[in-house]
Amino acid sequence: MELFDLGDFPLSTGVTLPAAKLAYKTHGSLNKARDNAILFPNFLGGPPEALEACIGEGRALDPSKYFIILPGNFGLPPTSSPSNTSLPFAEGAFPPVNIADDVVAQHRLVTEKFGIEEIALALGWSVGGLQIYEWAVRFSHMVKHLAPIATAPRPSPWTRLWLRMVIEEPITSFPAWNNGFYADAKAVQPALRRVGHGTALTLPPHGFYREGQEVWRSLGFISPDDFVARFWEAYWLPQSPNDIVAQARKAAAADPSQGAGTATALGKIEAKVSVITFTGDPMFPPEEGKWDADHMPNAQFSEIHSIFGHLATFSLSEQDTKAVDEALRALLAD
Amino acid sequence: MELFDLGDFPLSTGVTLPAAKLAYKTHGSLNKARDNAILFPNFLGGPPEALEACIGEGRALDPSKYFIILPGNFGLPPTSSPSNTSLPFAEGAFPPVNIADDVVAQHRLVTEKFGIEEIALALGWSVGGLQIYEWAVRFSHMVKHLAPIATAPRPSPWTRLWLRMVIEEPITSFPAWNNGFYADAKAVQPALRRVGHGTALTLPPHGFYREGQEVWRSLGFISPDDFVARFWEAYWLPQSPNDIVAQARKAAAADPSQGAGTATALGKIEAKVSVITFTGDPMFPPEEGKWDADHMPNAQFSEIHSIFGHLATFSLSEQDTKAVDEALRALLAD
Repeated sequence: MELFDLGDFPLSTGVTLPAAKLAYKTHGSLNKARDNAILFPNFLGGPPEALEACIGEGRALDPSKYFIILPGNFGLPPTSSPSNTSLPFAEGAFPPVNIADDVVAQHRLVTEKFGIEEIALALGWSVGGLQIYEWAVRFSHMVKHLAPIATAPRPSPWTRLWLRMVIEEPITSFPAWNNGFYADAKAVQPALRRVGHGTALTLPPHGFYREGQEVWRSLGFISPDDFVARFWEAYWLPQSPNDIVAQARKAAAADPSQGAGTATALGKIEAKVSVITFTGDPMFPPEEGKWDADHMPNAQFSEIHSIFGHLATFSLSEQDTKAVDEALRALLAD
Repeated sequence: MELFDLGDFPLSTGVTLPAAKLAYKTHGSLNKARDNAILFPNFLGGPPEALEACIGEGRALDPSKYFIILPGNFGLPPTSSPSNTSLPFAEGAFPPVNIADDVVAQHRLVTEKFGIEEIALALGWSVGGLQIYEWAVRFSHMVKHLAPIATAPRPSPWTRLWLRMVIEEPITSFPAWNNGFYADAKAVQPALRRVGHGTALTLPPHGFYREGQEVWRSLGFISPDDFVARFWEAYWLPQSPNDIVAQARKAAAADPSQGAGTATALGKIEAKVSVITFTGDPMFPPEEGKWDADHMPNAQFSEIHSIFGHLATFSLSEQDTKAVDEALRALLAD
């Protein structure tokens, strides 16, 4: 990934982050009109490779047609994060950050680095979706199309509890955590295993583990334990505990309305929107996505019948991949 | 509660538990024919008071008509448990126990203490249901009616993960746990808070926390945090960590078929059965209860439309209370 130098960056939380950096990766080329940019920010702890599974020639996100920017966000290295920031803001002393800070930083990348004034499409899933909703409200004139996928403008009360109880607290209640001033991240690994197990339990849909269904088999695992270890533990264990906590707290506090109420924020979105949800997604139930679509001036809603629930965002089956591609293609053609 | 002396009790796991005790409580009186007994075992960590909310004159479980026995189970004090057993089996050295051991002990109580040869109705919810399924398979000639409520003959793969990831591991991965040889249970309290939070997140149905629904308000709480603290933390924090772990491991291993397959076990049940499920129960989805009912010779299935999901077992609304009472009454009248 490349790094965009944000300089001394004033955070919305009242602290200036010295020599802040925003990581990004691009695919394709910006056209002369500078109007073929697609913005695709990241989900919680996610590496850009997971997003890149959605990009390809002939796909909706076609790098031969679009200039696709995958911007990072604070708390997710190599963007400025607890684990890569110098004193006085290293590790447990990293200042609180907001999704709005991510979006202001991304806006600077897009405008200052690339001279882009119009985003053809902003899309994102899960915590990536929180960022694009913030974009569509804060820079409503810039975002032409918006595709929130398995996400929400603001985490629901259940999702806020989830961010706290499944992601944050297993780490912060673990003694070796020591307020984020652990001597060695490995000492906190038992807590990251808890995060892995909590996500394994709560993110797949209910039928995923059911006898007679055992959807994990379709992903090449030979038992639930195999799936838990090689998919979920493998995802969380290499990450920095402080970085995970910073991202979870940031996501939990997301509110593009800045207290005015979600309906008010949604009413300001000028983009054409396609709200995409997945059947059985325990984190972003389709009925909640429907509510969001109903409160935007120019939005349509779709529910994709996937056996993967929230995991459908990972394009785990050809059927899901096709369904998402078709929804994005229809939106872009609009 | 009263204590039934089991003497030196040979556990199915190959260890004799010295001077074992089974706690129980009764309501009503045994009739002369000794055929009006109702057996209502306990759920995970549950006090008998929770079950007693289902008992009352004019209710289906009417103590003026029935002799209602609320038997304990191993791991749940005052029945023999890690926290109340002497050396060499105290605390972390308590031997593994099975649901089958609970049921053999309960059978001794019922037959030796009360001379009962016929159970008019065995009912139980959640982990209580694991016990009555074991009863109905192991002592199939004795159990005339069976009402499994929000439960299963054997925990599903998801429920086994839940028992491990929400109940057991937050405790056993906490350093002060020390293999069950903690100096003071209070040192493990942060882990019990995690158990409280995991159960708060995973047991209510999804709409429970949703804006515009906020079902917790109907229970007298003023915020999700208030509900989490005063309902869930209050439930788990006073319990012994070793006792909780013993119960969770026992539940996870439940299998009335002893490896022969659930359908085989269900086929042996002679009782008239009413499988009762609740809409939105994330732990025992109605479609799984339907499968159970379809595999018993004489069972009917019902789904109660409750807003409480798995919590509907606690009789939290008049509507749920009535619906369960009606289902039990219909079964007993059959």
